[in-house]
Amino acid sequence: MKTIKCIGVLTSGGDASGMNAAIRAVTRSAICNGFKVKGIYRGYEGLINGEVKELTTQDVSSVIQRGGTMLKTARSAEFQTVEGRKKAYDTMQREGIDALVIIGGNGSITGARIFAEEYDVPCIGLPGTIDNDLYGTDFTIGYDTALNTIVECVDKIRDTATSHDRIFFVEVMGRDAGFLAQNSAIASGAEAAIIPEDRTDVDQLEKFIGRGFRKTKNSSIVIVSESPKDGGAMHYAERVKKEYPQYDVRVTILGHLQRGGSPSAYDRILASRLGAGAIDAILEGQRNVMIGIHNDEVVYVPFSEAIKKDKPLDKSLIKVLDELSI
Amino acid sequence: MKTIKCIGVLTSGGDASGMNAAIRAVTRSAICNGFKVKGIYRGYEGLINGEVKELTTQDVSSVIQRGGTMLKTARSAEFQTVEGRKKAYDTMQREGIDALVIIGGNGSITGARIFAEEYDVPCIGLPGTIDNDLYGTDFTIGYDTALNTIVECVDKIRDTATSHDRIFFVEVMGRDAGFLAQNSAIASGAEAAIIPEDRTDVDQLEKFIGRGFRKTKNSSIVIVSESPKDGGAMHYAERVKKEYPQYDVRVTILGHLQRGGSPSAYDRILASRLGAGAIDAILEGQRNVMIGIHNDEVVYVPFSEAIKKDKPLDKSLIKVLDELSI
Amino acid sequence: MKTIKCIGVLTSGGDASGMNAAIRAVTRSAICNGFKVKGIYRGYEGLINGEVKELTTQDVSSVIQRGGTMLKTARSAEFQTVEGRKKAYDTMQREGIDALVIIGGNGSITGARIFAEEYDVPCIGLPGTIDNDLYGTDFTIGYDTALNTIVECVDKIRDTATSHDRIFFVEVMGRDAGFLAQNSAIASGAEAAIIPEDRTDVDQLEKFIGRGFRKTKNSSIVIVSESPKDGGAMHYAERVKKEYPQYDVRVTILGHLQRGGSPSAYDRILASRLGAGAIDAILEGQRNVMIGIHNDEVVYVPFSEAIKKDKPLDKSLIKVLDELSI
Amino acid sequence: MKTIKCIGVLTSGGDASGMNAAIRAVTRSAICNGFKVKGIYRGYEGLINGEVKELTTQDVSSVIQRGGTMLKTARSAEFQTVEGRKKAYDTMQREGIDALVIIGGNGSITGARIFAEEYDVPCIGLPGTIDNDLYGTDFTIGYDTALNTIVECVDKIRDTATSHDRIFFVEVMGRDAGFLAQNSAIASGAEAAIIPEDRTDVDQLEKFIGRGFRKTKNSSIVIVSESPKDGGAMHYAERVKKEYPQYDVRVTILGHLQRGGSPSAYDRILASRLGAGAIDAILEGQRNVMIGIHNDEVVYVPFSEAIKKDKPLDKSLIKVLDELSI
Repeated sequence: MKTIKCIGVLTSGGDASGMNAAIRAVTRSAICNGFKVKGIYRGYEGLINGEVKELTTQDVSSVIQRGGTMLKTARSAEFQTVEGRKKAYDTMQREGIDALVIIGGNGSITGARIFAEEYDVPCIGLPGTIDNDLYGTDFTIGYDTALNTIVECVDKIRDTATSHDRIFFVEVMGRDAGFLAQNSAIASGAEAAIIPEDRTDVDQLEKFIGRGFRKTKNSSIVIVSESPKDGGAMHYAERVKKEYPQYDVRVTILGHLQRGGSPSAYDRILASRLGAGAIDAILEGQRNVMIGIHNDEVVYVPFSEAIKKDKPLDKSLIKVLDELSI
Repeated sequence: MKTIKCIGVLTSGGDASGMNAAIRAVTRSAICNGFKVKGIYRGYEGLINGEVKELTTQDVSSVIQRGGTMLKTARSAEFQTVEGRKKAYDTMQREGIDALVIIGGNGSITGARIFAEEYDVPCIGLPGTIDNDLYGTDFTIGYDTALNTIVECVDKIRDTATSHDRIFFVEVMGRDAGFLAQNSAIASGAEAAIIPEDRTDVDQLEKFIGRGFRKTKNSSIVIVSESPKDGGAMHYAERVKKEYPQYDVRVTILGHLQRGGSPSAYDRILASRLGAGAIDAILEGQRNVMIGIHNDEVVYVPFSEAIKKDKPLDKSLIKVLDELSI
Repeated sequence: MKTIKCIGVLTSGGDASGMNAAIRAVTRSAICNGFKVKGIYRGYEGLINGEVKELTTQDVSSVIQRGGTMLKTARSAEFQTVEGRKKAYDTMQREGIDALVIIGGNGSITGARIFAEEYDVPCIGLPGTIDNDLYGTDFTIGYDTALNTIVECVDKIRDTATSHDRIFFVEVMGRDAGFLAQNSAIASGAEAAIIPEDRTDVDQLEKFIGRGFRKTKNSSIVIVSESPKDGGAMHYAERVKKEYPQYDVRVTILGHLQRGGSPSAYDRILASRLGAGAIDAILEGQRNVMIGIHNDEVVYVPFSEAIKKDKPLDKSLIKVLDELSI
Repeated sequence: MKTIKCIGVLTSGGDASGMNAAIRAVTRSAICNGFKVKGIYRGYEGLINGEVKELTTQDVSSVIQRGGTMLKTARSAEFQTVEGRKKAYDTMQREGIDALVIIGGNGSITGARIFAEEYDVPCIGLPGTIDNDLYGTDFTIGYDTALNTIVECVDKIRDTATSHDRIFFVEVMGRDAGFLAQNSAIASGAEAAIIPEDRTDVDQLEKFIGRGFRKTKNSSIVIVSESPKDGGAMHYAERVKKEYPQYDVRVTILGHLQRGGSPSAYDRILASRLGAGAIDAILEGQRNVMIGIHNDEVVYVPFSEAIKKDKPLDKSLIKVLDELSI
């Protein structure tokens, strides 16, 4: 295997808060261990187009507290083609990049896996997505921040829900995974959560309404995972409005504000540990693994495993939500 | 004129952060000056239905920092009828309430005005609305908090806009008044604001696009006042998408989270001053005036004036926004 | 064993954010499972003095988002005496309280253990302390919130440190445990942490200064755990000032603001799970155990174990901090 | 008078949140009006030492939301000497800087005034200080942010004060002006404020204690302006502890975290308006004036006036605080 002298780092897919902390950690830990570091802009697009710039320890000063990603990010259709990946490899050759650290979600790790197989390039993945849906890691970078952002928003919405005796359906991100919805429901004291893993539409509604919330409560909040298929919060609100016209029902779709903002303490620490862990992995000769956190310890998860399996929701939390929203 | 011994206080219309601080100020200042205080729940609805409870200084402990309104609020169709107002007056007689302090917006002050004329009841208004659209007061209770909430949200959205090189249309409240949109645009460094006072649709779009934002900027944020008439942010986003399919355009509608949350320092101080001012006004024999702030001094504004005139936007701010978003 | 019908709940020792969420969870989960719940005010003091009040599901509405503890808390010298504990037991008899849930730190759990042995009272502990220093649980209620509060404060201090090219020594809580100091240092991008577990005074200073921070950095932040013994941040600042008079050195002692504030999403979820877990434990006939979280699962930790052992810091984090602060 | 082609901008004295927004506004408004802009680092020190760099519109992108000052700041002893100011003037000549915009407090404006007199250099001042103590402007850049920061901190401290039935003395900045102390006391619902304008030590204490706070309240918060002369919060706490040993008295000194943090909406708007106003003033041929805000309009205040007079506190606010803290 070729000696690794220069490490490239990029962020890919949807941005998540803490990506900058991860870039900082990868950069500083790499330099600390004698590597050169090159930042690649706009994810795989930039790798294809040669948008590359060397990173020094100073370049990543004062970014740990910033949302978004200083390297920018994109989804790349071209990287899904053989030609695209060839160009990407050419850039690496030209720039002298010997290994790649990819910070992103499911799609980004999948891309890295294919690329690594085709070109024998050592790739290390870091789980960066607010959805928390990567297998093999307890948490992903950005999830805790998004969760706190949602909870702060729902706290605000509860003020107005209570003042007006209203039912609010609040839509949050996570179209394929209910982590954000379920946990923000518990944390905000919501009355129910409607999640993709258990979208038994009618039953949920029945359960919620059947529980007769107006007997003990004047206002209610239901957290709903976004769902392009069934229409999400708007859909459920319409149903309730139709069946119970006496209720004052409102919808708020939190949208993209869930992605940004200064990362939480946990996300900064997680990103720092995983970023340093990526360099440790390279030093140990690891390749084609995602750096994850499991039982508060840094672990290496083969790409194939990280993207193959669905990460299960903890069902015991549903019981907690049900009991505590009485 | 009858001696005033007991003052009723209520919140009406849309809730605004700082209403609790105003209730606290009215209650404590009144008690401090020898009055009894009764809280009326759910605005004029509660006055009609007799939802009344005496308030002590302890009852308003630890509410200054809370969003929403502890007295709840509602819009009352019944109070717009002669019969409704008769019932409201009966409640006052029965409860021994000699004067009313109404915290609310345009509609609430209008209701107070009619009621005061019909029944010779001393009414004092406090401007409580996030829209800042009451004439005679420089600021309304809740406006500064809503402005800060919007700006914090747009800061988060900017993180993701920048990371992805996107154009965001962010819709904020204020369907009849552009204070929130214009000022949040300046404060968040947005590229443009589309406001009800100047909704020259096409021109704005032309101006925005024509300015050729892609020459100097990769991402952009446009703040749009909600508008049931023309469709608001969604409408403008669709137009831009159609004309410029090469841009990645997104929409976020902030919705009701703009109403809640712990009030800003300014709103707490304003609510405290105006609440104490309401009791001063009663002691001075004032009636049927709204307590406002003008040039940082408490002023009395006759109801007729507060609701009659449109409060003008400061046009110089448009120039500031234009210059600083280059 | 007597059938348990009524459960008493109290908070004891230093307050921690999330205690209200825990009280809510205990109360609602207990009622949900058919128990009666009584709240005991001011910790063991209130148990001794009979400050007891029944709690309904409504009483714990809208407290999940509030800092502090609605049941108030205290340290009780009297409960450390045989007579004091006798009075406490008498209150339980009189009030018909069959089991106790104690939310607090090391001292509170120790008190529960002695009491449980003397009077055969089923006691369940919940780890509530910002210091995170209870053995057998990965996290304690309040720790994540305090960590975030510290990090937000240090972000602000960094703004001024950078603007003025200053060195700041920031003192945080945790006189016996360095979790807060070490992790807030990583999360805030601080240059060093001085912690009780490794207070090799001179070495640390040498290391910090010797690293020649002025070669690459104009400003620096050092996080110091409070220490009544050696004087904490003030002590270290004085030493640096004396040795390096050319540096502009400042101190900020964060103090009690670290305790309060709305709990983070994580602390709310943790408190909810542990509170519900306490009732599960009672239903299963458990007694004299602390409910903890380990590997993201609820676990039962015998009192003797929770208080006997020191919880170790993860030494790998020191390496992370060192590498990333270059 | 020489035609102005290039404008220099610097920040001086203690940093204040919103200074970056002001730098951005000055830069963009200047460029928009055809000027070249040069940023001067570290205040007058940098002017003396030639630390100068041209600023483009891009250089001030994404700084509106950041605390501190991107141009750094310092207090300069050398600028108080004839020689120092000579060097500063030489830098201006060498760099082709025709006019200066100085963002800072009392001392910085005083320096500008002397310099402008000696060298016939057009100087424009912007009031940037958290203390709000410049005459001729209703508000200074940074004051509203600091006020909100204090209030958020006191909200947290109140959680713990209430939970433990304690009296807290919280020390805030403003050694010569009580704006921060008095207004944060009103906004946080504190029981008293001890301010430099009315530091009738014993009377205040008597008043506070004499009011017999323990009759109606279990906890209390007193806001104290820092005071190197009399010892500030620590001093008052010691007195109360001595006279009333039965009370549990604590002190928190907020310190430098009051300076930093993302600016509030108001401070960003104020800084934007005043920064644009500085360029308007230059276009109008104004010189040696501070740009202020009065009755929500931009005004020009001659340097001599801005620094000569003490800005008075609104005494009516003392009455508000007294009435509302019952």
